[in-house]
Amino acid sequence: LSKLKDGVTKRIRNIQKFGKDDPRRIIHSIKVGFSLTLVSMLYYVRPLYNSFGVSGMWAILTVVVVSEFTVGGTLSKGLNRGFATLIAGALGVGAVHLARFCGHKGEPIVLGILVFSLGAAATFSRFFPRIKQRYDYGALIFILTFTMVAVSGYRTDEILVMAYQRISTILIGGTICILVSIFVCPVWAGEDLHKMIANNINKLANYLEGFEGEYFALPEKISKETNSCVREYKSILTSKSTEDTLANLARWEPGHGRFRLRHPWKNYMKIAGLVRQCAFHFEILNGYILSDVKAPEDFISKIQEPCSIMSREAGEALKAIANSIKTMNNDSVCVNAHIENSKKAIENVKFAFKSSSTETEKDLLEFIPGVTMASI
Amino acid sequence: LSKLKDGVTKRIRNIQKFGKDDPRRIIHSIKVGFSLTLVSMLYYVRPLYNSFGVSGMWAILTVVVVSEFTVGGTLSKGLNRGFATLIAGALGVGAVHLARFCGHKGEPIVLGILVFSLGAAATFSRFFPRIKQRYDYGALIFILTFTMVAVSGYRTDEILVMAYQRISTILIGGTICILVSIFVCPVWAGEDLHKMIANNINKLANYLEGFEGEYFALPEKISKETNSCVREYKSILTSKSTEDTLANLARWEPGHGRFRLRHPWKNYMKIAGLVRQCAFHFEILNGYILSDVKAPEDFISKIQEPCSIMSREAGEALKAIANSIKTMNNDSVCVNAHIENSKKAIENVKFAFKSSSTETEKDLLEFIPGVTMASI
Repeated sequence: LSKLKDGVTKRIRNIQKFGKDDPRRIIHSIKVGFSLTLVSMLYYVRPLYNSFGVSGMWAILTVVVVSEFTVGGTLSKGLNRGFATLIAGALGVGAVHLARFCGHKGEPIVLGILVFSLGAAATFSRFFPRIKQRYDYGALIFILTFTMVAVSGYRTDEILVMAYQRISTILIGGTICILVSIFVCPVWAGEDLHKMIANNINKLANYLEGFEGEYFALPEKISKETNSCVREYKSILTSKSTEDTLANLARWEPGHGRFRLRHPWKNYMKIAGLVRQCAFHFEILNGYILSDVKAPEDFISKIQEPCSIMSREAGEALKAIANSIKTMNNDSVCVNAHIENSKKAIENVKFAFKSSSTETEKDLLEFIPGVTMASI
Repeated sequence: LSKLKDGVTKRIRNIQKFGKDDPRRIIHSIKVGFSLTLVSMLYYVRPLYNSFGVSGMWAILTVVVVSEFTVGGTLSKGLNRGFATLIAGALGVGAVHLARFCGHKGEPIVLGILVFSLGAAATFSRFFPRIKQRYDYGALIFILTFTMVAVSGYRTDEILVMAYQRISTILIGGTICILVSIFVCPVWAGEDLHKMIANNINKLANYLEGFEGEYFALPEKISKETNSCVREYKSILTSKSTEDTLANLARWEPGHGRFRLRHPWKNYMKIAGLVRQCAFHFEILNGYILSDVKAPEDFISKIQEPCSIMSREAGEALKAIANSIKTMNNDSVCVNAHIENSKKAIENVKFAFKSSSTETEKDLLEFIPGVTMASI
């Protein structure tokens, strides 16, 4: 029994920790609960129930589905849902009227053919990358609404009343969600993207600063496991999809924070690409550190000093860049100073090993333009 | 006007090409259209409509939402939806009965508190990576169904009839989808994963075989754009998320093809990781090809022959591996022969540049264990 109790307390502590790591998660959960309670008023309050009836359930459905973590996600889903319902609803009413011309026997056949062809066409359109990226959810809702309107139009004559109730409840649900997500502790995808990229540059800098200590350490001192902070850059190697998702959401968001009109997500993607390129180089450098093949000692002692300076200065430059992105101040003077220093150090390194192994130098030569471009 | 006509024909041709590239897309669209037509029978056929009524629309909703491209996706969504509806429906009925004890005035308050707290808790649970990966959709449906049952229970007494109709129509819709997706031209996520990894290894082999020609070409002959086939490996660098998604879907799939019981998606992920590691090395090698800094000519002429043999043999080995994965035959004899040859070639290269640049050699030394492990 005490084992069970231990397990439970451990799990509770885990959950608490998980919430504390990013308190926005807890806030988001409360926001969703709040929106749900708000929208159930459509049932509890007598006058509202009288005008909408069971259609209120569409508002609940909308709230549950549209409530996303970021503002961009909520807006994208809400707008997609709203417009797709409008278009599909109109087409559906049209299809029902068309089918009525064909007599009672022909009606289901015409409707069936229409549902089949429009459903298949909309499903096919979802495979196109550009539609998939931005309007995937809209296409889904289009199929759904069109089929429902067309099919239930066969059984009911009050199709216009039904369409009106559906659309108005979906609008109510969507509006509640969008307002709550924008005005109650908003989570901007653009801001997340911003922070993520600044963090990634910082990770690169950490690696460069740890590099010196690792490469020139005595073999028996190298610990392959402990330096987790230095190895952080590894997460950048596979971060592309996260960045893509965030940028994709950020394009839906209105101006906020220090960007007045729209979020410059395209520029962020460019920087992210350069950062990833750097991380690839580091990955290979890392392979050299871990490999057992070492250069002769006299050679190492010759290059140790300039190499250390070079990696330290490049690291400082990256830190300065990350900082200036975070605070959104452009202190390029400080950055350029560090880049100049590291360039000088590279010259020294070059001098030190004229005809010798060129690996480190080349990696860093390729790495400097990346830094400079990112600072623009 | 003719301009417009040109634009339209061009677009139509694009769409045709897109369909031909992967005919499974067209088949999938037709499958969805077929399932939709099938499920609308619930409305068209009088006896079915009499027993289910407007609840038939839940079947339509289920079909639209659950129809995914791969079998794994359909199964995962369908099972999630089914179980979440069952659990949430039962809890919802319980909540309504509990609330009835509190009198007419207390009922909406108790229901509101329950909806708020369960909604917030389920939303929070969606942030946990393990739940997000496999049960995200289930949690969503749980919130949806619980809120709907609890809230509409306040207005209707026929809550059990309603719950029965909802659950049975969802089961009908889900079953239609799953049967259609498994038995009509199924698209297995596991098979896609399998092909993708074999293809990726092939891309690596292409690169190695093109490497020789590129590295030893005369500078003016190097065309940075044309060799798209050689550059294909670049897509591997960022393929991790696609692989993760496919593996995640593959774990839902029952045995099929040559795997009897379950899909060994974990092993696939391991191979994919090794392949990506190789691609990182190639990315750096590629940087050396494009850079303007070249080794002295006499040195190049010395290493040209062994280097060519080495990369050709390693490429052959990779091709053999890719082929044996594709056909699922284990012809390790042929693979090992190529690996032996390329190891011999590496020895020759080593001999050729004793004290010189070690970059290429090291990259390939690290690359060989990757190949060998992948062949296991």
